[in-house]
Amino acid sequence: MTRPLSVAVAGLGTVGAGVLTLLRDNADIVTARAGRPIAVTAVSARDRTRDRGVALSGLHWYDDPVALATDPRVDVVVELIGGSEGPARALVQAALAAGKPVVSANKALLAVHGAELADLAERHEVTLAFEAAVAGGIPAIKALREGLSANRISRVAGILTGTCNYILTVMREHGREFADVLADAQKLGYAEADPAFDIDGIDAAHKLAILAALAFGRPVAFDDVYVEGIRNVSALDIAFADELGYRIKLLGIARQTEAGIEARVHPCMIPMAAPIALVDGVFNAVVAEADFAGRVMLQGRGAGAGPTASAVVADLIDIARGRATPVWGAASGALSDVPSLPMSSHVGAYYLRLMVVDRPGVIADVTAVLRDHGISLESMLQRGRSPGEAVPIVMVTHDTNEAAMRVALSLIAELDTVLEAPAMIRIEAG
Amino acid sequence: MTRPLSVAVAGLGTVGAGVLTLLRDNADIVTARAGRPIAVTAVSARDRTRDRGVALSGLHWYDDPVALATDPRVDVVVELIGGSEGPARALVQAALAAGKPVVSANKALLAVHGAELADLAERHEVTLAFEAAVAGGIPAIKALREGLSANRISRVAGILTGTCNYILTVMREHGREFADVLADAQKLGYAEADPAFDIDGIDAAHKLAILAALAFGRPVAFDDVYVEGIRNVSALDIAFADELGYRIKLLGIARQTEAGIEARVHPCMIPMAAPIALVDGVFNAVVAEADFAGRVMLQGRGAGAGPTASAVVADLIDIARGRATPVWGAASGALSDVPSLPMSSHVGAYYLRLMVVDRPGVIADVTAVLRDHGISLESMLQRGRSPGEAVPIVMVTHDTNEAAMRVALSLIAELDTVLEAPAMIRIEAG
Repeated sequence: MTRPLSVAVAGLGTVGAGVLTLLRDNADIVTARAGRPIAVTAVSARDRTRDRGVALSGLHWYDDPVALATDPRVDVVVELIGGSEGPARALVQAALAAGKPVVSANKALLAVHGAELADLAERHEVTLAFEAAVAGGIPAIKALREGLSANRISRVAGILTGTCNYILTVMREHGREFADVLADAQKLGYAEADPAFDIDGIDAAHKLAILAALAFGRPVAFDDVYVEGIRNVSALDIAFADELGYRIKLLGIARQTEAGIEARVHPCMIPMAAPIALVDGVFNAVVAEADFAGRVMLQGRGAGAGPTASAVVADLIDIARGRATPVWGAASGALSDVPSLPMSSHVGAYYLRLMVVDRPGVIADVTAVLRDHGISLESMLQRGRSPGEAVPIVMVTHDTNEAAMRVALSLIAELDTVLEAPAMIRIEAG
Repeated sequence: MTRPLSVAVAGLGTVGAGVLTLLRDNADIVTARAGRPIAVTAVSARDRTRDRGVALSGLHWYDDPVALATDPRVDVVVELIGGSEGPARALVQAALAAGKPVVSANKALLAVHGAELADLAERHEVTLAFEAAVAGGIPAIKALREGLSANRISRVAGILTGTCNYILTVMREHGREFADVLADAQKLGYAEADPAFDIDGIDAAHKLAILAALAFGRPVAFDDVYVEGIRNVSALDIAFADELGYRIKLLGIARQTEAGIEARVHPCMIPMAAPIALVDGVFNAVVAEADFAGRVMLQGRGAGAGPTASAVVADLIDIARGRATPVWGAASGALSDVPSLPMSSHVGAYYLRLMVVDRPGVIADVTAVLRDHGISLESMLQRGRSPGEAVPIVMVTHDTNEAAMRVALSLIAELDTVLEAPAMIRIEAG
C-alpha cells in the first residue's frame, strides 16, 4: 500500500465535520477508489473546544489556516472557510504557491478570484479542484468539464440554490407569500438568519459564473452576471403561472450566441413539461445543451454536510489518483475570449402583471406603450370585472428585447390607471 | 504544442462516423481540453467504398481490425465494432496486451468479458475506458466512478434503452398495443429490424451489469442479472397504471442489501411523482442512491451518433490528459466479493391483473391462494359488472417475496375462472 495522502482541512463547520465523518465512515471504499488511504493530519478552525461529532485528537491544529499551506507533512489543502477574501483567499494562494493541490468548496472565491487563482495553479502546476462549489452532491463540474468535454455547449442553466427553490415550492404548494415562507424556512434552518446572499441570487450568481466559465471554456467573469432574486415573486404570480402552464423557478442561465455570452440569474417562468420545472424543494439541477451529446440534466442535493463532503472527497480521490484538469477546462492560453453581453441585449418572452383600475381604455393605454416599443403580445388574461376597483391584467409577450421592455415598463408604471409597480418575470424554455 | 494523440478507430458505422465528425467539427475545443490535438490516423471497417459523410483519405486502412493494436504509430485504439466475441474482443485484448489504451462503446463486451479485460488492462497498466457503453451522451460512468466515488452506493437504477422507453411512451400516450408501436418504431428507425436485443431487455442488462459493478465496486457479473423485457406489457396494464398513479418503465435496478447484490431488468410500475417516471421518449436516465451525496439523477440521450461520439471523445480527452481510473473503480485486489442474489429472493410490491369470469366466488378463490402464500393486498380494483363475461381484476400487493409470488401466480393461473395468464408487474420506488 502506498503511503496515505495527507490532507489538511481549514474550516470545521458543518461541511468540514462532514468531510471528516465521510473519511472515517467510508475509509474502506475511499482507500480502494483512491488507490491509497486519505488521512486528515492537520486542521484549522476558530474554536478548538466545540464538539463536532468527530474525533480530532492526534491532528495538528493550527490557529492560522495559512500555516497549513507550508506544513511539509501536508500533501493537499482543503479550504472550507468560505468568503471571497480574507483567510480563505490567503490560504488558497499560499497553498498553490507552495505547490500543494487545493480542494475548495468556496464558490465566492472561485467566482471572484478564479481567473487569478487558475493562473497561479497553472504556474505552479498544481490542481485547484472545486466540485463542492456548485450544486453540492451533483457532480456537475465533472460532468461539464470532463464528461461533456468534447462538446460545444450553447447553454447551461440550473436551479442553483436549494433555499430559493424550497421557498418557491412552498409558496406554490400552499399559496403563501414570500416573507411568510422565508420566516418559516429560517426557523427550519433551510435559510440563513441573514438570507440576502441566497434570496437575492448572489449565491446562485457565483455558481453560475463558475458553470459558464466551464461550459464555454473562458475565464470566470462574475461581474458580468446579471442578478435578480426572488423577493418580488408573489403568490399571485405563482398562481397565474400555474394557470398559464408554467412553474416559477430561480434559474441561473448562461448562453453563448454569436454576439457573446449572456449570464443571468433571475426568477423564470418555465413550461411545466420541461424536466427542470419539476425539480422541487431543496433539490438543485443543472442542464447543459451540448452540440453532440444533446441536452443533459443532472439533479440532486445541492447543499448540506453529506452532499458537500461527497464532492470534496471525490476531488481528493482524483488528486490521489493523479487525475488533473485545468481549472477552467483548458490551459489559460487556450481559453476563449468571447465577450460578455449586457442584460439589456437579452431577447426573450416576458410575463407581465399589472394591477389596474377596472375602467374603459386602460388596456388601450397599456398596449399602446407596448406597441410603441415594438413589443407584441402572445396572450392576455383578464378575469372578473369590478368596475372602478383594482384588477390584475396578465400579459405574455412574444420575444422582445430587454432594453425595450424596461423602457416600456417604466412608462406603463407611470400611467395613472396602473396602481402598483408592474410585475415582470422572464419566460425560459427550461 | 505537444504532438497529437494518434487514434485508430475500428468500426465506421453510425458511431464511428460520428466520432470522426466530432473530432473534425470540434477540433478547437477538443485540442484545448485535451491539451493536444486528437487525430485519427488509422481505421478499420468492412466496406472501404461506402460514403460515411466524413473524409477518410490519408488514413491508414486496415482490413483486419486486430492489426490496429500493433501499429506503432497508434497511441489509442477505439473499438466500435460491437458484439461480445469475435473481432471486437480480439482487438481489445490485443491492444491492451500491446500496452495501448482502449476506448470502447461495447456494452456486451464489457458486460460479458469485463472482469477478464480489467485484469488485462491492470496487468499492462493501461486504460480501458467505456463511457459510451452506458447511457450514450450522459456521463453516467464518470458520475458513478469518479463523481460519487466517495460514497457507498445502495442502489442504482436506470432507463437504459431509449427504444423500450419510446415504445412504452407511445403506448401510453396513444393507448396502443406493443406490437403495433414496435412496427412503427422499426419503420422510423427507432428500433432494429431484429429488435429482440432491445425489447427483451438484454441490452439494458448489459448496461446494468456495468453500472452495478461500478456502483458496488465489484467485478462485472452479467450472468447474475435477471432479465425480463417489455413484450408482455399491454395497453390495458398501462391504463390501469395510470389510474393507480404509476408509470410503466423498463428499469435496470441493482441494489446492495446485507445479503448481497440484486440486479434485475424488468418492466416496473413507478409512482408518477418519482423524477424517473417523467423521463419519456428516447431519453435515458440513471439514478444513484449514495450515502453522503443522497439521490442523484442524470438524464439525456442514451443513443445515436452524436451522444455516443461525445462519450467516446470524452474518454479520449481523459487519456490525452493522463486521467486514468481502474476499470471497475478500484484495483482488482480492492474489489468487493459480495455475492449476487437470485431473483427468487427479491422482496417488493406487485401489480397483478387477472382476466376472470365475472361470477360469485372468483375473488375468494384468488385471494385464498394469495393468503396461503403469505401475500397480502394493499388494494384491489374491479370495475363494471358483466355477469358470466371476462372482466379484469387488478390487485396491488404489500411487500412480498418473489418466490412466493411465482408459486401463487402459477396456482392462480390454473383456476378455471382465470382466463388468461395473469399479468404481473413489479412496483418500484423510482
